[in-house]
Amino acid sequence: MKNFNYSIPTKVFFGKDQINVLAREIKNYGSKVLLVYGGGSIKKSGLHDKITGILKANNISFWELAGVEPNPRVTSVRKGAQLCRDNKIDLILAVGGGSSIDCAKVIAAAYYYEGDAWDIVLDPSKIKKVLPLATILTLAATGSEMNAGAVITNFETKEKLGTGHEDMAPKFSILDPTYTFTLPVKQTAAGTADITSHIFEVYFSSTKEAFLQNRMAEGMLKTCIKYGPIALKDPENYEARANLMWTSSLAINGLISYGKETEWSVHAMEHELSAYYDITHGVGLAILTPHWMKYILNDSTLDKFVEYGVNVWDIDKNGDKYAIANAAIEKTREYYNSLGIPSSLKEVGINEEKLEEMAKQSIRRGKLGNFRVLEAEDVLSIFRAAL
Amino acid sequence: MKNFNYSIPTKVFFGKDQINVLAREIKNYGSKVLLVYGGGSIKKSGLHDKITGILKANNISFWELAGVEPNPRVTSVRKGAQLCRDNKIDLILAVGGGSSIDCAKVIAAAYYYEGDAWDIVLDPSKIKKVLPLATILTLAATGSEMNAGAVITNFETKEKLGTGHEDMAPKFSILDPTYTFTLPVKQTAAGTADITSHIFEVYFSSTKEAFLQNRMAEGMLKTCIKYGPIALKDPENYEARANLMWTSSLAINGLISYGKETEWSVHAMEHELSAYYDITHGVGLAILTPHWMKYILNDSTLDKFVEYGVNVWDIDKNGDKYAIANAAIEKTREYYNSLGIPSSLKEVGINEEKLEEMAKQSIRRGKLGNFRVLEAEDVLSIFRAAL
Repeated sequence: MKNFNYSIPTKVFFGKDQINVLAREIKNYGSKVLLVYGGGSIKKSGLHDKITGILKANNISFWELAGVEPNPRVTSVRKGAQLCRDNKIDLILAVGGGSSIDCAKVIAAAYYYEGDAWDIVLDPSKIKKVLPLATILTLAATGSEMNAGAVITNFETKEKLGTGHEDMAPKFSILDPTYTFTLPVKQTAAGTADITSHIFEVYFSSTKEAFLQNRMAEGMLKTCIKYGPIALKDPENYEARANLMWTSSLAINGLISYGKETEWSVHAMEHELSAYYDITHGVGLAILTPHWMKYILNDSTLDKFVEYGVNVWDIDKNGDKYAIANAAIEKTREYYNSLGIPSSLKEVGINEEKLEEMAKQSIRRGKLGNFRVLEAEDVLSIFRAAL
Repeated sequence: MKNFNYSIPTKVFFGKDQINVLAREIKNYGSKVLLVYGGGSIKKSGLHDKITGILKANNISFWELAGVEPNPRVTSVRKGAQLCRDNKIDLILAVGGGSSIDCAKVIAAAYYYEGDAWDIVLDPSKIKKVLPLATILTLAATGSEMNAGAVITNFETKEKLGTGHEDMAPKFSILDPTYTFTLPVKQTAAGTADITSHIFEVYFSSTKEAFLQNRMAEGMLKTCIKYGPIALKDPENYEARANLMWTSSLAINGLISYGKETEWSVHAMEHELSAYYDITHGVGLAILTPHWMKYILNDSTLDKFVEYGVNVWDIDKNGDKYAIANAAIEKTREYYNSLGIPSSLKEVGINEEKLEEMAKQSIRRGKLGNFRVLEAEDVLSIFRAAL
């Protein structure tokens, strides 16, 4: 186990009707709020009315940044930061999934930064101070509700990049699984794929030990495997929604990555697909993952795949190791198929044309991964296999 | 899954040489420290010199409360609170295992309480304000380094009781597994038994769901099962010590109990044994646990025991359910035996004499548990079976 510094300061209010704590918690930070949300589903569902009703009843002033994009853009961040400055906002409240939350995080950091907001995405070390922010989650996927990272897209430069700062962690997050009951099937599926990918990115690691973290990661994978299909078939199954939501938060708040080298190869590859083609992040991850697994399987990564197959998929441990590993990869592919996610890049409108350019771009911050290091040509091979 | 409010604010610095952050972290709170520790093992190991050297080099003044008992007594709490008041202490630094830490926590709370320290053990709601405290852990066991609870003993009244307040959570904890290399075998064994008991107390629950939490709990149990014996045979095995230490913290910081009803029956029963006979807490737990399991096994608890046997002990799931459950309980007993822990009350000097009195006392705050509610006569039966 490697050394680590653990700090997960976000308070989580989990369960039905936890929105009742909203006004009390906001008042710890002030009385002027910027609401940040996406395409309007929270208006349809009645959540917007509920929130604004609570704010009004408690004399909390609020302004709104609506229409944050599924791959949130730096243009939205700029708008939000201006709104915060113009109105001396005390706390940013993101309502939605990772897109709204990530956008709110970078707005909160951009508020105190004098230059252009894109600078602090390109170079997180420029972030020195951050406005308090909080979240109300409506999609189990990115885990952004309980960590300090954010991903922002700049379509002018075709870049989708991660940034972060410890003070970008939400002060509190309200996680009410019933808010995910009305999600479209496709979003539930893509969100679940996103969670599994976060787990894979830290489970498959060059750190051979960290036994505890590996067993917890396997428990999280089993949770996604059990409840993803249930949530699709029975969208109002509380236990399914609750387990997926809590897994989304714990999968990427550090708990299973502390003490380990991490990969983040598939995310880096997928960010190119989203940046060039604006596809759904979770869909891109689900398409790439089995091909990435197949590509990196070799004599030195074999044992980890066997562990994965035996512990997560209950494959008989007495078989040939490569047979177990390949069966585990096949199970992974079948699982994503069972969620109704496309299984090839062509199905989401991506062809050979820009693969080489995207592969080059994917390593702009350096080679990918440690468990199996990937260079641009490796990424290109994985992209091609996924066509 | 039940509603829950998650807050784990303690920062953890985990790994070799993390003591290097000590002075920097203390200075966030001030420059006057009360060191709280036990019987002097930290003097033998050189850790005391190391810490006081760092404090002196950084102009941090310190006072000492040494000799905290294995079952920490309210008399020590009183002494410590007086030392804090006399010297206007800014932060209490507990060095040791759960005893030193629990004592430090209640000192921190007693500092601001005008009456006698025992009052705030009897009635935690009297705690209104708490001095900042931090810990340097030298024993993987109680998990007190990452939560807000404490257990204090009053030998005058023969009471060992838990208390707590959210501000009693350490501000930071330094977890360096190498500090446990020199532990006596018996303490390693008892500490490991304590960790497993914390997991059992929340794993066996009347909440049938909370799938994710159950899988994480099983991962923690597997970690204890794997590394307990290794740490006994090879005390300087870093990976064993690291996994046990991190499991001790995560087992009882809320992570696996949030969203569930919890039991805490065995702890309540054991507290009587310690209060009357001053035995080692982990030993008492290990003696009682298999008998408690056997006693509560019935048609309504059966499925949980099957889950435990199949998922934790890899017992074939296709057998008769009661056979699986009983095999799992037997495995539990064998496991504690393999750690060299006594398996009967007689071996630790407890006989029939006070069993009835202790059984009555164990329910002074109400019946025990939810998964299988225990009244005084049930407790007595378990005590007798454990003789």
